[in-house]
Amino acid sequence: MSTGRLEAFSDGVLAIIITVMVLELKPPEGADFAALHDSATSLLTYVLSFVYIGIYWNNHHHLFQICKTVDGTVLWANLHLLFWLSLYPFTTNWMDEEFGRASVVTYGVNLLLAAIAFTLLQRRMMRMPESRERMHEVFGSDLKGKASVLLYVLGIALAFVEPWLGLVPFIAVALIWLVPDPRIERYLQHERELGRTLD
Amino acid sequence: MSTGRLEAFSDGVLAIIITVMVLELKPPEGADFAALHDSATSLLTYVLSFVYIGIYWNNHHHLFQICKTVDGTVLWANLHLLFWLSLYPFTTNWMDEEFGRASVVTYGVNLLLAAIAFTLLQRRMMRMPESRERMHEVFGSDLKGKASVLLYVLGIALAFVEPWLGLVPFIAVALIWLVPDPRIERYLQHERELGRTLD
Amino acid sequence: MSTGRLEAFSDGVLAIIITVMVLELKPPEGADFAALHDSATSLLTYVLSFVYIGIYWNNHHHLFQICKTVDGTVLWANLHLLFWLSLYPFTTNWMDEEFGRASVVTYGVNLLLAAIAFTLLQRRMMRMPESRERMHEVFGSDLKGKASVLLYVLGIALAFVEPWLGLVPFIAVALIWLVPDPRIERYLQHERELGRTLD
Amino acid sequence: MSTGRLEAFSDGVLAIIITVMVLELKPPEGADFAALHDSATSLLTYVLSFVYIGIYWNNHHHLFQICKTVDGTVLWANLHLLFWLSLYPFTTNWMDEEFGRASVVTYGVNLLLAAIAFTLLQRRMMRMPESRERMHEVFGSDLKGKASVLLYVLGIALAFVEPWLGLVPFIAVALIWLVPDPRIERYLQHERELGRTLD
Repeated sequence: MSTGRLEAFSDGVLAIIITVMVLELKPPEGADFAALHDSATSLLTYVLSFVYIGIYWNNHHHLFQICKTVDGTVLWANLHLLFWLSLYPFTTNWMDEEFGRASVVTYGVNLLLAAIAFTLLQRRMMRMPESRERMHEVFGSDLKGKASVLLYVLGIALAFVEPWLGLVPFIAVALIWLVPDPRIERYLQHERELGRTLD
Repeated sequence: MSTGRLEAFSDGVLAIIITVMVLELKPPEGADFAALHDSATSLLTYVLSFVYIGIYWNNHHHLFQICKTVDGTVLWANLHLLFWLSLYPFTTNWMDEEFGRASVVTYGVNLLLAAIAFTLLQRRMMRMPESRERMHEVFGSDLKGKASVLLYVLGIALAFVEPWLGLVPFIAVALIWLVPDPRIERYLQHERELGRTLD
Repeated sequence: MSTGRLEAFSDGVLAIIITVMVLELKPPEGADFAALHDSATSLLTYVLSFVYIGIYWNNHHHLFQICKTVDGTVLWANLHLLFWLSLYPFTTNWMDEEFGRASVVTYGVNLLLAAIAFTLLQRRMMRMPESRERMHEVFGSDLKGKASVLLYVLGIALAFVEPWLGLVPFIAVALIWLVPDPRIERYLQHERELGRTLD
Repeated sequence: MSTGRLEAFSDGVLAIIITVMVLELKPPEGADFAALHDSATSLLTYVLSFVYIGIYWNNHHHLFQICKTVDGTVLWANLHLLFWLSLYPFTTNWMDEEFGRASVVTYGVNLLLAAIAFTLLQRRMMRMPESRERMHEVFGSDLKGKASVLLYVLGIALAFVEPWLGLVPFIAVALIWLVPDPRIERYLQHERELGRTLD
């Protein structure tokens, strides 16, 4: 089973998730800059969730550059990931409207479950016979993935103490992923030099 | 007529349906976990409808892996399916806001009509001269499809007696489809072994 | 310039238009079937607009099956068509909430302008040197297109007298297009028989 | 890394941005043409933002016709562009509801930042080894891009004096881009004549 349609469907879902969050942004009430200032926190949470979805799209894109055939369980592992990502607008919106322990913890749990879903998808794809070797070569240790899970757990714990504090590890995760994954770039570069094309 | 654009359009519509339902999820009113608890039923109905759309996407994907050419009537049979699926956010939303006999029965009728539309699409595609043989080989008896229709009818009948009871057969349908269709996987596996590629 | 991305973008926009209209459908207020009955007109206008967008997707799909290269003016003629189609949710919504002369006339004008935009797109594509001959062969007289424009004008005129009456020609247009275009099917069939593939 | 999926994702995001703005258009309150007249400014701002997104889609399409391989930094430069474009519905909506100095200036700043993001993307793509030469040939001086930035800055300055005045340079930018880029058309034409195909 080729990955073309799985990628197209995931692109569609991610494109919608990243965009519908802007629909939740209410226009400022008032015609002056002070009114815009009141929307500042909404804009900041929007930026954060936009970056997360952007990172997932990027990593998803990389994953399916290496692995080109899938089976039925990968389809469901992918839908499972999309499910948790689809809840971002909901948890972002709650955190934005009622900033506090419960909403930040819930946001963190959502981030954590999406990260776990991504790891499950990646592991499942590592078992595909055609790409097992290449997948292990590229994603073998997955330090970033493990660090993300730890940081999310830390953030959830901190949010119980003080909601704002919980955001620090969440933002740290975004920062460590913003850099494009050198493993894949290096691998693709290496492939090119060997004169082999993946696509 | 090749199926590329029909698949892309259907992917788009399904991606939007699966995602817009999250827009109907109002953020909890209050900053504590009790407020989140009040959203629990909304989240559960969201999960259920997400799973249904995921199943349809999966099955649709499988269908067009086997059948690669279509005519004008298939285009309309597909739009007919998308129409009933596009009503899921509406009926899900009603059931969520006003749980009762009328809304659960309506939700069940919507599920039933989508299942019938899928069967019609599959039958129509079985008549395409190029793929008739393969389609019959793979989808010949369609036991799961027939069982789904019966379970939906049962659920609608039970919902007249007691709304909650109606959900049991609906959830049963989701469960029997969650497993990827072994017929298609086996067929594709078989094809690969014969050294023939479908794509 | 190949048409792949133009088709993908148009598919995306049409998929969203056809789906967002369901977001305008408010869930019935009340838990009984009488409440659903009150939503009946909303559902009917939704069906009508769904069918129109489905028809445009179908015709758009057919058009780009024949013509495979485009230039910059075609990109804009296509965006012009998408603009008028993107207003369907707005005019449908108004007609649904305030059924009367002004809203039905406006709905008709929207339908008319989309039909004219489609004609302009088709004419522009007929001038592409690579596909001029084939386009003329297939879309030469365009009786259906001309009949649609006349029926829309008639509907707008009738709506000034009595809003409900205006809907009759609008529905007639939907019916004459629901049948897949035999010219294109015949042409593609003919091509296949000659052993030439278009794709 | 090939550009297929980047283009598909961008198409999805742009298709959603261009379409969700119509969701912000409230149906006129009242059943007569006077009510529609009250929606006139909303419709005009919708047209303006639709044209801007259309222009970006067009230019984006052209850009990726010339440059066919990308790396990780291009993925992020593209997401950066999509971020600013995704705010159009928000700033358009504010300007529409509270027309005044603050909202028009904010709209202009949004337009300006999107233009800068497009320039950054284009520059980044000019450094891709495979397409450097062709990119420079086609986008070398980028007069239109520079003029746009200047006009946006002028519009923002004018909006501080008188909001309506600020719209004049903004509309001027839309007009200079509406014409398809002759550089690219000429380049593609030239390529065709040389018997080389880009795709």
